[in-house]
Amino acid sequence: MSHKIFQARHKVRGFECDYYGHVNNAIYLNYLEFARSEALEEAGLLLKDLKAAGTIVVLKEITLRYKFPAVFGDILRIETRLKSYGRTSGVFFQQIFRENDDKLIAEAEVVWVVVNPEMRPMRIPEHIISPFLGEKSGEPS
Amino acid sequence: MSHKIFQARHKVRGFECDYYGHVNNAIYLNYLEFARSEALEEAGLLLKDLKAAGTIVVLKEITLRYKFPAVFGDILRIETRLKSYGRTSGVFFQQIFRENDDKLIAEAEVVWVVVNPEMRPMRIPEHIISPFLGEKSGEPS
Amino acid sequence: MSHKIFQARHKVRGFECDYYGHVNNAIYLNYLEFARSEALEEAGLLLKDLKAAGTIVVLKEITLRYKFPAVFGDILRIETRLKSYGRTSGVFFQQIFRENDDKLIAEAEVVWVVVNPEMRPMRIPEHIISPFLGEKSGEPS
Amino acid sequence: MSHKIFQARHKVRGFECDYYGHVNNAIYLNYLEFARSEALEEAGLLLKDLKAAGTIVVLKEITLRYKFPAVFGDILRIETRLKSYGRTSGVFFQQIFRENDDKLIAEAEVVWVVVNPEMRPMRIPEHIISPFLGEKSGEPS
Repeated sequence: MSHKIFQARHKVRGFECDYYGHVNNAIYLNYLEFARSEALEEAGLLLKDLKAAGTIVVLKEITLRYKFPAVFGDILRIETRLKSYGRTSGVFFQQIFRENDDKLIAEAEVVWVVVNPEMRPMRIPEHIISPFLGEKSGEPS
Repeated sequence: MSHKIFQARHKVRGFECDYYGHVNNAIYLNYLEFARSEALEEAGLLLKDLKAAGTIVVLKEITLRYKFPAVFGDILRIETRLKSYGRTSGVFFQQIFRENDDKLIAEAEVVWVVVNPEMRPMRIPEHIISPFLGEKSGEPS
Repeated sequence: MSHKIFQARHKVRGFECDYYGHVNNAIYLNYLEFARSEALEEAGLLLKDLKAAGTIVVLKEITLRYKFPAVFGDILRIETRLKSYGRTSGVFFQQIFRENDDKLIAEAEVVWVVVNPEMRPMRIPEHIISPFLGEKSGEPS
Repeated sequence: MSHKIFQARHKVRGFECDYYGHVNNAIYLNYLEFARSEALEEAGLLLKDLKAAGTIVVLKEITLRYKFPAVFGDILRIETRLKSYGRTSGVFFQQIFRENDDKLIAEAEVVWVVVNPEMRPMRIPEHIISPFLGEKSGEPS
């Protein structure tokens, strides 16, 4: 995958941790949503603009693998990149690292589809996908 | 206060508890909102109907006193009643009890105001306040 | 799958819904955890007893498919059953239905492993797995 | 109040907003806890150190006034300062501002007490209070 990597950072808060002192399982989905939202913003794609243009991005499936528990005070780096895409849908690959030692905390594949206001799948507009493609890779060296 | 008491019940869930095994401080506001929502429904007041009628109930202030920590598995009974009201605003008094022994967990006063779609305070409609007044109590029969 | 089905119910609360009026994506993980917790309790397996016995159940992976949005006030029925298991790990299959019409809202596979206090995978104790196997289905072999 | 002001910043996330697009009422308590936690860290007071020293800070009461709704993407500045203190308890005053125009979003008084491991109120240790006092104010006028 040579697609552009978007980064977001978050410091684990006390109320996000459970009885074991670990970040609660569901909270990781908040982190991933936060990082996708930051990536969209960095890509110049505001949700309200997408919505105004009649384009809605809907989550279809998330596969989340827990690798190592994060704890209160950890600074996390969440990386988001496009893994693949087709005519109406795509997949993001996201990884959560502990910033100070790059320990992998969790990773996820997130499948989404673009729908119109009637919730029918529609062709992904070019301007949505292009910011995630990043630099061309195949240039001769 | 002889006003009608509305009751809601909730069993504490694991993800609501913090490192100490206690329900997180902010979660109590979720419990209180849940109980007010149930009270409104029992009173025949649906938020969408209120909104459709151009009547919005806005929170102004909450005072929450923590009395005793609730823990995973506790069954809580949340009581909601009208404490007082004026022309455009009112106060709910809410208490959270542990169901099995009536231990008081927390209590709150919740100040709200009724506004119109332009967010201007408006007189409280009669049908909003009457379900909370309950039976007259002390008059001679 | 003829394994025993455990059921839990939840009425969607206002603070669980997002800007679109839909239950937020991450909240579904709370529902699933709640339902697993209820299933464990019904199976006679308390987390504190498991922990005291040096047996910790750790989540490894969740795959969550969103089928249809739940909204404020929906009564949901969450079904939990054992899908498969091996020497040290197992998979739960969970489905979230809208109670009044059995509309499928979401479904998930949840992979877990049993570890000892040193976080080493260990053989699943018989008393953990047996309550989930349910009745023999008695077909002649 | 001439006591030292501690600052924390937070950008409102999508999952923190409700059906009206406003930050949910309970989420403000998360913001306030986050800001107090940052203040404690800046003051050199780590919760684990306090706990190890047999000193536990317990919330007794929060009064939260909602002034203006925050929305998705707002950058908030949360200010925390000591308002007053006595032998065993103290009060923080916290304000949440929208960073770009200093609009006041919410403010709170937070009453806490210091207890020992038996949950008995104890005299506030000097090193807990001194970082919050800030500059001496007592110059002759």
